Amino acid sequence: MSAPDHVRIFDTTLRDGEQSPGCSMSPQQKAVMARALAELGVDIIETGFPASSRSDREAAALIARDLRETTLCVLSRCLPGDIEASARVLQSAAKPRLHVFLSTSPLHREHKLRMSKDEVLEATVRNVAYARSFVDDVEFSTEDGTRTEEDFLAEVIGAAIAAGATTINVPDTLGYTTPAEMRALFQRLIATVPGAKDVVFSAHCHNDLGMAVANSLAAIEGGARQVECTVNGIGERAGNCAMEELVMALKVRGAYFEADTRIDTRRLVPTSQLLSRLVGMPVQRNKAIVGANAFAHESGIHQHGMLRHRGTYEIMNPEDVGWPASQMVLGRHSGRAAVAHRLRALGHVLEDGELDRVFADFKALCEKQRVVDDSDLQRLMQDDANGDGYRLTSMTVSDRGQRASAQIELSDPDGLRIIESALGDGPVDALFAALAAATSVDLKLESYQVHSVGIGTDARGEANLSVRHDDAEYQGTGTSKDIIEASALAWLDIANRVLRTRQPQRLSALA
Amino acid sequence: MSAPDHVRIFDTTLRDGEQSPGCSMSPQQKAVMARALAELGVDIIETGFPASSRSDREAAALIARDLRETTLCVLSRCLPGDIEASARVLQSAAKPRLHVFLSTSPLHREHKLRMSKDEVLEATVRNVAYARSFVDDVEFSTEDGTRTEEDFLAEVIGAAIAAGATTINVPDTLGYTTPAEMRALFQRLIATVPGAKDVVFSAHCHNDLGMAVANSLAAIEGGARQVECTVNGIGERAGNCAMEELVMALKVRGAYFEADTRIDTRRLVPTSQLLSRLVGMPVQRNKAIVGANAFAHESGIHQHGMLRHRGTYEIMNPEDVGWPASQMVLGRHSGRAAVAHRLRALGHVLEDGELDRVFADFKALCEKQRVVDDSDLQRLMQDDANGDGYRLTSMTVSDRGQRASAQIELSDPDGLRIIESALGDGPVDALFAALAAATSVDLKLESYQVHSVGIGTDARGEANLSVRHDDAEYQGTGTSKDIIEASALAWLDIANRVLRTRQPQRLSALA
Repeated sequence: MSAPDHVRIFDTTLRDGEQSPGCSMSPQQKAVMARALAELGVDIIETGFPASSRSDREAAALIARDLRETTLCVLSRCLPGDIEASARVLQSAAKPRLHVFLSTSPLHREHKLRMSKDEVLEATVRNVAYARSFVDDVEFSTEDGTRTEEDFLAEVIGAAIAAGATTINVPDTLGYTTPAEMRALFQRLIATVPGAKDVVFSAHCHNDLGMAVANSLAAIEGGARQVECTVNGIGERAGNCAMEELVMALKVRGAYFEADTRIDTRRLVPTSQLLSRLVGMPVQRNKAIVGANAFAHESGIHQHGMLRHRGTYEIMNPEDVGWPASQMVLGRHSGRAAVAHRLRALGHVLEDGELDRVFADFKALCEKQRVVDDSDLQRLMQDDANGDGYRLTSMTVSDRGQRASAQIELSDPDGLRIIESALGDGPVDALFAALAAATSVDLKLESYQVHSVGIGTDARGEANLSVRHDDAEYQGTGTSKDIIEASALAWLDIANRVLRTRQPQRLSALA
Repeated sequence: MSAPDHVRIFDTTLRDGEQSPGCSMSPQQKAVMARALAELGVDIIETGFPASSRSDREAAALIARDLRETTLCVLSRCLPGDIEASARVLQSAAKPRLHVFLSTSPLHREHKLRMSKDEVLEATVRNVAYARSFVDDVEFSTEDGTRTEEDFLAEVIGAAIAAGATTINVPDTLGYTTPAEMRALFQRLIATVPGAKDVVFSAHCHNDLGMAVANSLAAIEGGARQVECTVNGIGERAGNCAMEELVMALKVRGAYFEADTRIDTRRLVPTSQLLSRLVGMPVQRNKAIVGANAFAHESGIHQHGMLRHRGTYEIMNPEDVGWPASQMVLGRHSGRAAVAHRLRALGHVLEDGELDRVFADFKALCEKQRVVDDSDLQRLMQDDANGDGYRLTSMTVSDRGQRASAQIELSDPDGLRIIESALGDGPVDALFAALAAATSVDLKLESYQVHSVGIGTDARGEANLSVRHDDAEYQGTGTSKDIIEASALAWLDIANRVLRTRQPQRLSALA
């Protein structure tokens, strides 16, 4: 058997993933996630769609300044203005890739593009060549490719290669295809399209019928050497191929697929958890690889088997994907290095100054409690991020069952004290009304969740809010032993971000 | 093209699904779920594993009395005691199936069973024959079948068929296999094993590497005519093949698979939501078919395409899987039939007496609010279920940020008033302490979640609790405009169930 082929992991968490309802991220959040993806070892990060929003352009520029070793890709329609917007944000990237896409299927040609086959071919050639005039690394995607007449698909791909595309991506845009179809399609395209052997073929699969991972793996069997995927499988509708599942399938079944990735699998779980926190979207307990139950065994028969031989009911070790083998305990005797190590394991990559602040907070917390666990550290990170805005200094809530009142005391960004009170249908309703009055920030609640983190006397509540403000959606998180306080912290987390984006002098420092 | 073949849907939500951590159900909850599964149109319901617990035996008996049209199956190891326990609970079933399993893989033979190949063969024949002495419909499963030497697997299956098995299930117990392997395995087994053409082959796939649905579909391509699956894909570790995804893949790609099921697809979403409520485990937003985002389109490009032609970004209609096309509005002018219809759509199958009570509550609620939506109806159902236990009559909570107190007033099952108060780290902690003191029920909190249901002024909080009591796990749900009150209702939901199981005269009525 020859050495396994390298399959490139093209992460589109920040583009296709971020496009899904409730998953939008600020440029700063995208930058945090991009660093975690680079540490995870992905080959290409798609950072956004520059023509679509200023936020996407800011994020792409931020990330380009930050990550010099990872290929950074941005998306463009087949429009000169799109390609120029992409080329501008890629100017500062060390390893830029320009991604151009056009629909090829009959339904899309007729109803979405209103273009003939010849017009699609002509637009492909013209725009791929234009993209190549800016960068050498150009990817072309045939949107709705799996529902396209195969001879026309081959013709478009051949034209894109001739015009200079170096990666050819065939998306299963609607999650419609099956593994057998996908494998055969890639085999035939690679065998027959002129120039196919000189470029990298890529799959981009959606999960509408639950087959995104299997279809991506089948594309690899058919010769694809790049897969487009997202952390936790987020993305339009039912989402994209879940990176953690694809990567572990290639690892566990390496001998079968004869292909592997460069992902550091021990960072899969921390990266998944980081994304869940950033977008406020937890994965379900039975999610493969990164779900809380993925390695849990409850039934007597399975426990019995596991005690005799781990392989009876496990095909991978939880440690291999980053679940803690044993909970590492931090406390007052722990040093800076141990705290920094644990924070990195949790997906936080810190500058020196940030670590100083967090370590000081860690030491202060050790005076109050014996053991500092992962959820405490997450909370410290979050408090630190909120440091320059409103801070909750005290709160009193009274609740008589659907008639509640809240009184809060905040310190504002200049350190001044603000006291407000309000009534509401329940304590959280009253609290949010008081916070809105105190900060003059109007947030329209879209969803609200609280769940417990940890077990027993150290258990905490984590509140996740999703709100709308000025037509943009924001997610916020707060953690406390008291779920009402956690809710207030989540609300302030968002309000402080909203207020930061209102300050133009700060934004210009990023652009 | 010939008429599509019928693929039998074997639902194991109540057995493999219920076995997963945090998904245990009481016999009464299983009976509610079984009725919904029967209405959904599944062919076989696996109701439990009688030898494993009294709760499984009670559930199987309850369901057997209730459902006369659906094949009811129970699981047994290859042990005479297991088979006898199964045969006893199947006595009252109209269409009984006895399911016997034995591991066949080298790792399981050596470390779990400590049996030789000959011993496995001999135990298979003896126990299948014994099962056949009780019922005509016997299923045999080769646990860890996909990691078994293929010649030995074929030998065991041949022996099971000769001994009287009528369905042969080949589980991918660890979610290890790939679609191409699965298709080829089924093709070869069905072509070569003596008697294979006279029995039904079945697949049982786990999702550890994200391929459960694709592997099940590949088994169908290879000749399987039964698939074992669960609602929402719950089950051991990363779960089982998700029924909703499999069923819709067969429907959307009917021409490709030349196979179909008898599932009423418009009941998929209500059934998914019913299970989520019963076990307190919500599906993630990007879950295929039944997730909140499965048919959501946020990006401008997709919305634009959707406006021109729905088919550009949708391969199925949300209505086809049971998402409401338009929210049906109920109010004071609505009649019994409309309420009953909506309750059925939400997955509640009511006896006449139950409907009377819920309709009276509905009318009372219409006096208080203009519109009664789905979450209101769910709450009425839940209040009704709690009717004969402790009821919360009032509560007052005071919270000063991690120093909280709660005072509650309950009416006990005999209508007497109980007042209690307690302190805690937060309002929920204080509240649960007061409830425990008032009811003398000691519940150990395992997980706690609150999320918002509905939007705007009609929004409500739904609290989901998971607790442990006397080594059993319980889930409870409560809904209120006030999340603290919702939490109290969820706690009482569980406490009332715990107290009901303590009353032996009630249990004997079920057994």
